Amino acid sequence: MEALKNKFITIKSRIEDEPQEFMFEIKTQTILGLLEPESNDVIVKCLYISIDPAQINRMKKQSSSQTSVAQASEITPGMWNIPLTVTGKCNGETWVVTEYTIVKGGNMLWKLEAMEFPLSYHISVIGTSGLIAYGGFFQICRPKKGEKVFVSAAAGSVANLVGQYAKLFGCYVVGCAGTKEKGDLLKGKLKFDDAFNYKEETDLISTLRRYFPNGIDIYFDNVGGDMLEAVVANMNTYGRVAVYGAISDYTNLGKRATLNMIDVIYKRIIIKGFLSTDFSLNEIKDFMSTTTNYVCVGKLCVLENISYGIEIIPYAFIGLFQWRNVGKKIVQIAEE
Amino acid sequence: MEALKNKFITIKSRIEDEPQEFMFEIKTQTILGLLEPESNDVIVKCLYISIDPAQINRMKKQSSSQTSVAQASEITPGMWNIPLTVTGKCNGETWVVTEYTIVKGGNMLWKLEAMEFPLSYHISVIGTSGLIAYGGFFQICRPKKGEKVFVSAAAGSVANLVGQYAKLFGCYVVGCAGTKEKGDLLKGKLKFDDAFNYKEETDLISTLRRYFPNGIDIYFDNVGGDMLEAVVANMNTYGRVAVYGAISDYTNLGKRATLNMIDVIYKRIIIKGFLSTDFSLNEIKDFMSTTTNYVCVGKLCVLENISYGIEIIPYAFIGLFQWRNVGKKIVQIAEE
Repeated sequence: MEALKNKFITIKSRIEDEPQEFMFEIKTQTILGLLEPESNDVIVKCLYISIDPAQINRMKKQSSSQTSVAQASEITPGMWNIPLTVTGKCNGETWVVTEYTIVKGGNMLWKLEAMEFPLSYHISVIGTSGLIAYGGFFQICRPKKGEKVFVSAAAGSVANLVGQYAKLFGCYVVGCAGTKEKGDLLKGKLKFDDAFNYKEETDLISTLRRYFPNGIDIYFDNVGGDMLEAVVANMNTYGRVAVYGAISDYTNLGKRATLNMIDVIYKRIIIKGFLSTDFSLNEIKDFMSTTTNYVCVGKLCVLENISYGIEIIPYAFIGLFQWRNVGKKIVQIAEE
Repeated sequence: MEALKNKFITIKSRIEDEPQEFMFEIKTQTILGLLEPESNDVIVKCLYISIDPAQINRMKKQSSSQTSVAQASEITPGMWNIPLTVTGKCNGETWVVTEYTIVKGGNMLWKLEAMEFPLSYHISVIGTSGLIAYGGFFQICRPKKGEKVFVSAAAGSVANLVGQYAKLFGCYVVGCAGTKEKGDLLKGKLKFDDAFNYKEETDLISTLRRYFPNGIDIYFDNVGGDMLEAVVANMNTYGRVAVYGAISDYTNLGKRATLNMIDVIYKRIIIKGFLSTDFSLNEIKDFMSTTTNYVCVGKLCVLENISYGIEIIPYAFIGLFQWRNVGKKIVQIAEE
């Protein structure tokens, strides 16, 4: 087998603040010689890359993302990725996304079952994003019908699905997003009960009181910061906060949430962080069967935003922090 | 029946900052005429008053303590109090502690079973303080043997018991307190593995790293603020924070905790507020049988600090905020 030219995206140095295009570079390397004749190694060609805000934590000098997740990742490498997306892989000193990857013999590869869905769905609605939404909502939040659910960054890859699951389950759902168009999408196509543009609001505590006169039971949190503080102030007794993202914290530009612990105590609020790797195989099966069914019968709307070419990755990634994106951001880097 | 002179302690106005003696006053009132001949009303003479930092939340103009707890209190009025301590009762505009109280017919009174223990134990080790410690540790924190437990305000009424339960269960326990003497008590009489005086430390994150080189699994939080932030930084994956107090938040002088939500997510930390009224009758029975047994055989050390006379209540209460107290603070206001 001849050597392969392998394009990859890397960062020039660690990124602590808001990511910008000049911080990334694209390189080409001849990384592969021959596979060992007797080895079980596999060369994987990447097709789709999942673009997520949390990937910035891998680009920092130091983050609990790099230590706490390492173990979990080793258990199910690439499980929810397509062939093998190497998004966020921490390769020594640099964060790289490559066209090709060698998977060493002994590592688990997960062959996708042929389904009627586009391949990209396996990193969106029936992939990690869907699992975080479904598992997080049903396992972490333990909803009851009629409960009041608030979703931030609600047009995002995970949150839009949380809102849809919550509506299908019988909850009252309000989402917030950063433009009027996103709000219209939430109330229209996604059938949220209500939505607002947080950029037009000056006092988030009052805003939430207006949208939830009877309080919030469940908050699916992707942003942290001011919004989390305002939610805690508006939360009902036994309220639950499922935290899977904290965009306000990801860059030094954001503001961390300062929590009112008196509210946490007297309202017996639970705040719980979780990752997609936390769910059991049974929970994953339940998620897959429910979700594929919802998608087949058209009950769940799939929002994907696909760009093309490995070169676009920095721009696509940065877009998440500029709130340019709607739905799941994906970059296709090769034809199927 | 003739009229009763009833002494009571009240606040002159709402207290938002650190409580001081001049903010309280003692008054005498003829509150009781005759009980209605056919009524089921009962006159209760108070013997012991439980003095707790959280009572300050009832003295504020507004606090979630006053709204969220109201319902729970109505379900089990005075259940864990002795005859009926009216500590923290919100009587219209003022917070009052009285010598006598009329319990209206139809309200539940809980007759204490005769036991070999002093009556005061029913508001300390086998009362609310013990239940918060036991229920919070076993039900909220779900410990495993060998796990690393950190307890703040560790010489306090609840925390000293948490540390003792955790040691008896087989955990590694470190406590912090505000004087060297308290630290010696924790390591000596209470058999904690280690203890430190947080007032001698300048960088709490480093301090905790020194005492927990392998991280913290469980934190029993009574203070909030800086210490909670430092704990989150030192927490292990799947760490649990049981929050039953937030002295740093109780007065405006304290500093609220600013949480690193990235740690919360990637370490899958659970932060959960709870109250003594959250536990089921079965859990309470379990607590009572285990604890009375521990006390009988001398495995659990009971720390009580009893003062005498209704007049001392403001001084005793204020002492909690000046860290003057060790163990459960109680005021006896009448002979048994």
